[in-house]
Amino acid sequence: MTAGQLRASHLLVLACACLVATLASAQPLPSWNEGPAKSAILRFVAATTTAASPDFVPPERRIAVFDNDGTLWVEYPLYTQLVFALDRVVREAPAHPEWKDDPVFKAIVAHDAKALLAHGKDPVLKLLGTANTGMTVAEYDREITAWIASARDRRFHQPYTSLVYVPMQELLAYLRDNGFRTFIVSGGGVEFMRPWTEKAYGIPPSQVIGSVVDVEFRMIDGRPELLRLPKVEFVDDGPGKPVGIYRAIGQRPIFAFGNSDGDLQMLQYTAGGDGLRFMGLVHHTDAVREYAYDRASQVGRLDQALDWARAHHWTVVDMKADWNRIFAF
Amino acid sequence: MTAGQLRASHLLVLACACLVATLASAQPLPSWNEGPAKSAILRFVAATTTAASPDFVPPERRIAVFDNDGTLWVEYPLYTQLVFALDRVVREAPAHPEWKDDPVFKAIVAHDAKALLAHGKDPVLKLLGTANTGMTVAEYDREITAWIASARDRRFHQPYTSLVYVPMQELLAYLRDNGFRTFIVSGGGVEFMRPWTEKAYGIPPSQVIGSVVDVEFRMIDGRPELLRLPKVEFVDDGPGKPVGIYRAIGQRPIFAFGNSDGDLQMLQYTAGGDGLRFMGLVHHTDAVREYAYDRASQVGRLDQALDWARAHHWTVVDMKADWNRIFAF
Repeated sequence: MTAGQLRASHLLVLACACLVATLASAQPLPSWNEGPAKSAILRFVAATTTAASPDFVPPERRIAVFDNDGTLWVEYPLYTQLVFALDRVVREAPAHPEWKDDPVFKAIVAHDAKALLAHGKDPVLKLLGTANTGMTVAEYDREITAWIASARDRRFHQPYTSLVYVPMQELLAYLRDNGFRTFIVSGGGVEFMRPWTEKAYGIPPSQVIGSVVDVEFRMIDGRPELLRLPKVEFVDDGPGKPVGIYRAIGQRPIFAFGNSDGDLQMLQYTAGGDGLRFMGLVHHTDAVREYAYDRASQVGRLDQALDWARAHHWTVVDMKADWNRIFAF
Repeated sequence: MTAGQLRASHLLVLACACLVATLASAQPLPSWNEGPAKSAILRFVAATTTAASPDFVPPERRIAVFDNDGTLWVEYPLYTQLVFALDRVVREAPAHPEWKDDPVFKAIVAHDAKALLAHGKDPVLKLLGTANTGMTVAEYDREITAWIASARDRRFHQPYTSLVYVPMQELLAYLRDNGFRTFIVSGGGVEFMRPWTEKAYGIPPSQVIGSVVDVEFRMIDGRPELLRLPKVEFVDDGPGKPVGIYRAIGQRPIFAFGNSDGDLQMLQYTAGGDGLRFMGLVHHTDAVREYAYDRASQVGRLDQALDWARAHHWTVVDMKADWNRIFAF
């Protein structure tokens, strides 16, 4: 390369940087109303990404983690993965004549949640485990992809991937535009999220952390495959979330968003590092456009974490007041 | 943005693309001699990254995985992590008066490998476990960082991070320049690699997969910490490597490099997907510049994987013939 070429390349780099700055100056987070939550986010990002700021964080340490269910998409009245796993029990039934007289199976087929709950957790989990393991991870992946493409939720009659929150999609993109790496840290199974998170959130499979069932390497008809075993290897919830972050990221996040008590330890772990930190909770306060639930809910209960957030001045998003738009449809 | 600005931005993007192409056309892999290994790599990358190629792979599926010990840096005559862990036993001794008469401890202090091996694996692992757990992951991280900065190997008298292979550093960078994401998939512990892999290989902590000990979330003096427990949670070796890849990446790699039988299943798993694949082995054949070992070695044994590689026409790098340079020093 000649000196002339080198100078030309410098000019180009500068020109590109200006262009990027121009594009980024469009108002960020348009679906967020002006208010304390939006201000806190903008202030945090400015403080950690401005080179002259005392709170500047180099890009390699800009790790942002997000719970999925109830934080990035709808979890109410039933976690989507549970809807899928129950559906699979029904579809697998022909291969399991022994289920015919099983009261748990009957409750699932009848969509009788009350009868189902009456049996307690263990027999339900056992049936779910049988119906959702024993195949290769590639086969299960195809099943999930097909289900996600065709299933519709019962209230909005939309594909589940349309039930992602637009304000959170904007937030993920805004953080990435500012040099953050965004990760999902969910209590749900990694296999259920990975087929669609890239498209829905711009988050690739390797940045999706969650609960995992044991898988085993096997040669099947001369082909190397991974087989799903009926054993939960790791539950990425509550105190498991910081452990999942350690295993998969190996760095303490500086930004974390959740919506329930299962996210408390992840947020505490994020808060416990040195320097400026951002901890946020989505509070479901909008029964008209989405749902309203917190302390008394069986799904996504927000109780202890809400008290802790208020006591420690974390950001609590009031869905009704803070978001001018929730879904894209 | 005006139409004029939009056109200007298009021109800039085109100009930048040309510049990048110019920079990339400098000869890649300069430390690799012309030969079948280098040709195979260049051919594979051209075939999978040229849009018009029948073997084109979109960037989001360009996953490349590398073993660490013996593939990216020296592992002989003793894995570096083992040298560190043994050193730590000696440094921890004042806190463990009960070790004074322990024959395993005495063998470690005396650097008596023969006496050490005579005791079998379990008592050695027990002592190593005691000396290398019980602290927070942050404390252990600082210990590793300090040790890596000060320790020197016994043959080359170099810091261990200077014992990385320049040809493999070039290969990692070359793959990334071509849109691949590079991951380490090692039998070693993640905690031992993460403090230095970014600097040595350009691989961030979240792309380092390895064996893990159990860690537990605890509030210690009001600070949320992760504590190392004396229990190995996952061994990322042999059939464990495809499992580790599933857990942490969630996609089947299309490019894999190893050097020992512990990498065979990772390479088989990579080979088992559809489309063009690259499987490579580093064969240690250079006793003068590095080491020569394979089928009979206790460390990094290469036996079954060598036969399999030859039978399936994988790329076997002959270190002596294929690399014109090994280390940067």
